[in-house]
Amino acid sequence: MRWHPAELIKKKRDGGTLSAEEIADLVRGVVDGSLGDAQLGAFLMAVCCRGMDAEETAALTLAMRDSGRVLDLSSVPGCKVDKHSTGGVGDKVSLCLAPLVAAAGVPVPMVSGRGLGHTGGTIDKLQAIPGYRTDLDPGEFVAVLLDCGFVMAGASAEVAPADRRMYAVRDVSGTVESIPLITASILSKKLAAGIDALAMDVKCGRAAFMREPDAARALMRSLVDTGRRAGIRVTALLTDMDTVLGRAAGNALEVEEAIACLRGGGPADLRALTLELAGEMLCLAGRSEADVARLPDLLDSGAALACFRRNVERQGGDPRVADDPARLGRAPVQVPVEAGEAGHVADIDPLAIGLAVRDLGGGRRQPGDAVDPLVGIVLARARGASVARGDLLATVHARDRASAERAAVALRAAITIGARPEPRPLVVDRVR
Amino acid sequence: MRWHPAELIKKKRDGGTLSAEEIADLVRGVVDGSLGDAQLGAFLMAVCCRGMDAEETAALTLAMRDSGRVLDLSSVPGCKVDKHSTGGVGDKVSLCLAPLVAAAGVPVPMVSGRGLGHTGGTIDKLQAIPGYRTDLDPGEFVAVLLDCGFVMAGASAEVAPADRRMYAVRDVSGTVESIPLITASILSKKLAAGIDALAMDVKCGRAAFMREPDAARALMRSLVDTGRRAGIRVTALLTDMDTVLGRAAGNALEVEEAIACLRGGGPADLRALTLELAGEMLCLAGRSEADVARLPDLLDSGAALACFRRNVERQGGDPRVADDPARLGRAPVQVPVEAGEAGHVADIDPLAIGLAVRDLGGGRRQPGDAVDPLVGIVLARARGASVARGDLLATVHARDRASAERAAVALRAAITIGARPEPRPLVVDRVR
Repeated sequence: MRWHPAELIKKKRDGGTLSAEEIADLVRGVVDGSLGDAQLGAFLMAVCCRGMDAEETAALTLAMRDSGRVLDLSSVPGCKVDKHSTGGVGDKVSLCLAPLVAAAGVPVPMVSGRGLGHTGGTIDKLQAIPGYRTDLDPGEFVAVLLDCGFVMAGASAEVAPADRRMYAVRDVSGTVESIPLITASILSKKLAAGIDALAMDVKCGRAAFMREPDAARALMRSLVDTGRRAGIRVTALLTDMDTVLGRAAGNALEVEEAIACLRGGGPADLRALTLELAGEMLCLAGRSEADVARLPDLLDSGAALACFRRNVERQGGDPRVADDPARLGRAPVQVPVEAGEAGHVADIDPLAIGLAVRDLGGGRRQPGDAVDPLVGIVLARARGASVARGDLLATVHARDRASAERAAVALRAAITIGARPEPRPLVVDRVR
Repeated sequence: MRWHPAELIKKKRDGGTLSAEEIADLVRGVVDGSLGDAQLGAFLMAVCCRGMDAEETAALTLAMRDSGRVLDLSSVPGCKVDKHSTGGVGDKVSLCLAPLVAAAGVPVPMVSGRGLGHTGGTIDKLQAIPGYRTDLDPGEFVAVLLDCGFVMAGASAEVAPADRRMYAVRDVSGTVESIPLITASILSKKLAAGIDALAMDVKCGRAAFMREPDAARALMRSLVDTGRRAGIRVTALLTDMDTVLGRAAGNALEVEEAIACLRGGGPADLRALTLELAGEMLCLAGRSEADVARLPDLLDSGAALACFRRNVERQGGDPRVADDPARLGRAPVQVPVEAGEAGHVADIDPLAIGLAVRDLGGGRRQPGDAVDPLVGIVLARARGASVARGDLLATVHARDRASAERAAVALRAAITIGARPEPRPLVVDRVR
């Protein structure tokens, strides 16, 4: 490092503004190890306490992007658009969205992550498709994108290595909750994939990373502003994560639901959010309103499903799942959960559902934990539906009866039967 | 640890108040390693940014004290009083003070540190006395205290190990400048020596740890308040460190000056501050004003010198230095620095002098560096003295001519000849 680490840390501690050169120096120290763990922990805490302005956040994002390999997608014609969601329960939108946008002719190079805690991850869902490979090298990534119009892969170890170390330190040191650090972590990896534009889906509600709308809105603004400073087009939706998105939570179960959406069916909220985000991505790519208006047809006609089928085959998966989702397999045990009283589904606590899926083995307590692709929960009724006593509320898919019973207990507590609830808007806010 | 480290760190990050149990848990984690470096760095930065209230600071101090061995001095009769200075240039007060207070009948179990950067350390000064041992085990420490009325030693590895690890992390991570952390670091080690009372000498000015009087005053109040909460009597002086204390800077040279003070001579400021602090220590021990008034006699009569001589012998040093300081030795090269013009000594920059001594080899750049006991600087004239052109301003004592010449250049820049300066009070403020 060019500067003494402690001097840069003190500057931030005392509320100063770091220059782009100083931030790049710190990120160099993160990657080459000349910034020790104690120094990194102290620096990240100083950022948590003192914040970073828009210029500093952009400089941090770019330095983290440049800490590793940055893909060159110039061989792929068109405006390359990705989507990022801050994560939730039942959020399988990426699986519907990428083929749909590709079917509309806009290339989607999608880099996704794994689930942790109550939130699922797109990579885990994709790996529920027998044979599907998400560990593509840069050459394969570009080739699949050119062939299929979209590609879905995990970030390789060469992408933004600074983020990997910073995230590991943040996770243990109480420095996760910082809008500049969250912004830089998300965008550095997205930018490293060589995208031109990004649609953000920032969630708020009980199962969201930022539960409060104001905090989520601040993150949304930071992501949009930082992305634009980094030279890409960005729009963002603030969407509801106070209930499960769609009906299914659990990897294979979510793939099945995504396929239903790609066949023109599936839950209304999943279709609606997929179309909203696809519309944003088309706008980002400079497409017309008429193109946006044709998006539902691409779901209903099977065009998006065809893109999906082609991609599954190209990435090593069994393409027959597109037409026969039963090929995804089925968990050994199914246990129904029934309504103990009549009324309406007044509330479904998405955090409790997410944790129940994790406890079934469908998610992770620690990064690196193995995930069971087949377990999960399928809600029979959405929020607001009327139910009679004894009606099916949900089905637990489990690897054994004991874990199924535990999940059933959690589900009964997570689903409240009562008065008909006020409908909640799916899209709460939007930045274009 | 009983709590998850990140939860405790977040509580402080968000401005919360940690309980004594939570702080004790963190300190346990510091000692047993279950709190990692990244977590410790983040926690210390959270304290820098959010502060700690008086109760938290006391809890931290006590937990750090109890992280290692705590001496039991109950076998030593009387009120055991120590002194702590926040450090400066030319501050050899401890060497005069401990024998003086012991001569007045108040036991002084003194635990001291080594120098770093521009500041000297009492342990380094004592080790300039041939044979003098400062690494006493607890049994020796108590035995010397009982025999001589005072004892001077470094903190053993068993004393406040939490402080050792915390200080190492603070030093590299930009988390030194925090009043609660400074307070706990100082007092945990002092309290571990089993003292009943402590006189604090908090310095302010260019060569002080806290340059600004307001910051130094805040530290002084924190030290007094925390010490009292921890169950000892504390008084504090805020004293000037904007010029060199006494005339000598450098280990053996300072011992020689301290001996002059113990013989009833020496520079007026050194004698004055020694008597001030000795008066504080006698008050802390419950002695009368009459006892305080007799302190100058104990210097002038040789009573304090006799205590010093006995201690030097008891701690393995050559007691003849008390009567013949030439036995301390002499650096190979002496170079005079003379006034280039007539006027008054308008300013002596103590920081520049301290750094010049360090560069001569008399101090440390890094902890663990070896120190040359014989090198240093002796000022021929104090701040405010009138000088003619060519008058001797100072003498450099060096191991070779090249380093002496470099020090002479630094000295000429550090000493300003000009108009007669306003006198500065030695004691700026006081808390009893």
